[in-house]
Amino acid sequence: MTLQRITIEPNQIDDRHITLNREQLHYLTRVIRLPMGGKFHAIDGKGNLYLAELASDGAQIIELVTDGGSEIDRELPLNITLICALPKGNGFDDIVRASTELGVTTILPALSDRTLLQPSPQKLLRWCKIAQEAAEQSERLKIPKIAEPQPLKTIFEGLADLDDKYICEARGEYPHLLTCLERNRDLHAPIAIAIGPEGGWTDRELNLARDRGFQPVSLGKRVLRAITAPLVALSLIVGSYESREDRAG
Amino acid sequence: MTLQRITIEPNQIDDRHITLNREQLHYLTRVIRLPMGGKFHAIDGKGNLYLAELASDGAQIIELVTDGGSEIDRELPLNITLICALPKGNGFDDIVRASTELGVTTILPALSDRTLLQPSPQKLLRWCKIAQEAAEQSERLKIPKIAEPQPLKTIFEGLADLDDKYICEARGEYPHLLTCLERNRDLHAPIAIAIGPEGGWTDRELNLARDRGFQPVSLGKRVLRAITAPLVALSLIVGSYESREDRAG
Repeated sequence: MTLQRITIEPNQIDDRHITLNREQLHYLTRVIRLPMGGKFHAIDGKGNLYLAELASDGAQIIELVTDGGSEIDRELPLNITLICALPKGNGFDDIVRASTELGVTTILPALSDRTLLQPSPQKLLRWCKIAQEAAEQSERLKIPKIAEPQPLKTIFEGLADLDDKYICEARGEYPHLLTCLERNRDLHAPIAIAIGPEGGWTDRELNLARDRGFQPVSLGKRVLRAITAPLVALSLIVGSYESREDRAG
Repeated sequence: MTLQRITIEPNQIDDRHITLNREQLHYLTRVIRLPMGGKFHAIDGKGNLYLAELASDGAQIIELVTDGGSEIDRELPLNITLICALPKGNGFDDIVRASTELGVTTILPALSDRTLLQPSPQKLLRWCKIAQEAAEQSERLKIPKIAEPQPLKTIFEGLADLDDKYICEARGEYPHLLTCLERNRDLHAPIAIAIGPEGGWTDRELNLARDRGFQPVSLGKRVLRAITAPLVALSLIVGSYESREDRAG
């Protein structure tokens, strides 16, 4: 049976003792009704997984599980940055949840010409919480970092050092993302992919991306919703990585 | 500007006249407030797209748009059957919506050992409605067929003639779906893919599938939710098809 997993902050650990906050304690004792001495897994979001047991004053670490195995194995050894224009409504919640599940490393919400929405600070907290829960559910050890929404230009400047960058665009005749992934890539190089809002990027944005070294790519001929497109892109990136490893090995 | 699109039954057309039902009329005149003489697109779900204009007694067909172009182009020239174990709750709604968007041809809901849920007849109607709306939204001309939920064995028997069949399985060491797609496939051959419920297929089901010519494949090392797995599989199938066409041409 898989042990229940909760996320802790590294500073909650002192030697072999874990101080649990109110919410974590409530979850362990009330929601999943773990008895005293009951075992659970704690992850610190940095890649460390601990086996711990519930004690009267928090929890005791039994061991640091760092030796790989099927659990740690799930973490994708590829650094993927998803740049995603904020869609209308709560669509970004779904994007964060599924992207985490698919193995994304960093999510950079973008303020684009066609999405004027400036989300409240609560939104970012909410997204971080969703990423944490999705990481727990999908047995990931690393929780994706989510940045504050930023203008596209700022985001591009922050990624100047990255070689392998793509921007998805529905109009125009661009090569398919998978064609680029299968042809060109250094398999282990970090990768960034930008997905536009409903209605797509403006020409200004597309030119800006090109100037900053982003290769325009297509996700195919179908019209995808803004919440589906990131999942398709990530499925192809992760799939191509794992399949090429498969084929190479 | 893209014209609004509605779905009609072929028998609503008599010569060049379209009889609109109450719901369609309400949608056109009240929801999107199309004036008399206003243009819209009608699709019959069989691949025909009509340009029509609203009249006092229904609508008049101006022309049958059959000459390809960017609209018709969106339809994937590949027959994809998705066999999908029914997940708990309303998860299948999302699967139908996104699968339609991604280009699926047929959806076969499966009663599996680990999903005892026997859905009500209303569910099937609901799924068909969702597929229709998703087809309209994503500018597809064909609406996926959705069958009644059936036992897995019945489904497999119905697909006996198909050569290219895959079953996704999280446990075990199977080749990656994309590896199979990139290596073996006759590009244009119809394809079927089976996705299990939360908790995966039972050994009995997996053996049954193998006996019926299904190749077990992996979707990668991550733990995917039952509603995410079909989207990943379809993204890879469609992506590989379009990308290989790209690379060939």
